[in-house]
Amino acid sequence: MQASDIAAHVPTVTASDPVAKAVRVMAVSRLPGLIVVDEWSRPKMVLPGTQVLRLAVPEAFQKDPALVRAIDEESADHFWVELGSRTVAECAPVSAPRPVTIRADATLLEVAALMARQHSPLIAVVHPDGSLIGAITLERLITSLAVFTTDE
Amino acid sequence: MQASDIAAHVPTVTASDPVAKAVRVMAVSRLPGLIVVDEWSRPKMVLPGTQVLRLAVPEAFQKDPALVRAIDEESADHFWVELGSRTVAECAPVSAPRPVTIRADATLLEVAALMARQHSPLIAVVHPDGSLIGAITLERLITSLAVFTTDE
Repeated sequence: MQASDIAAHVPTVTASDPVAKAVRVMAVSRLPGLIVVDEWSRPKMVLPGTQVLRLAVPEAFQKDPALVRAIDEESADHFWVELGSRTVAECAPVSAPRPVTIRADATLLEVAALMARQHSPLIAVVHPDGSLIGAITLERLITSLAVFTTDE
Repeated sequence: MQASDIAAHVPTVTASDPVAKAVRVMAVSRLPGLIVVDEWSRPKMVLPGTQVLRLAVPEAFQKDPALVRAIDEESADHFWVELGSRTVAECAPVSAPRPVTIRADATLLEVAALMARQHSPLIAVVHPDGSLIGAITLERLITSLAVFTTDE
């Protein structure tokens, strides 16, 4: 099998979409991450779910556990509200890493090695011009492999 | 809300379980990672899904994309089989990081900040003695927060 055989269509967002929309798209589609595309549908960022969540956590809280602990339960339940209409571009790290992409003809072992190396449970499969073909989730990869036959 | 309010029971594995079983437990329960416990049910490792996958990717392939690319499609489809009965302990990194755990009374903001900081879509909620209460997945956290009301 090749990457394009198991790639699926997934909803994407752009950098000008609100972070709240990005989190919602990921949750509703039960995706383990999110692909942020540019105006030509080329992946610009491939964010693991934890890093989509990170967009929504106010920067001051990201690195200071003591500060986070000082927030009372009621306020902590509503930290999302603080986000308002801030966009993905406004909340993303200034130096975003190269998007995690792979060729359509890559093998499933290449997909697995890339996911493991990049710590990314979602990877974008792209055409040679960089445009998006689809996405492969960790779950899809595992269920596509013969893993269920190697034990028991 | 507190961490213990949204923690759920999840299946766990031990370091002496085969990697193939670990991958299967994660896939069958649709978990974004896996908790490896010791003989007293205390989390020993909390592995994000990509790092559970990594246990199954032969070490030589983990760091060398060129080597992975040289494997033909047929062999790549069956790389799991090479695993045989190797255990989690045999495949885990020698210096595993501290398990990603949190107190029962932590706020959801503390949970979110920890997940974002540790890049872990799964965290273990523990008693003061270190034993496991349950787990919180990224999906569970997001659906527990008021994120759906902040936009539209």
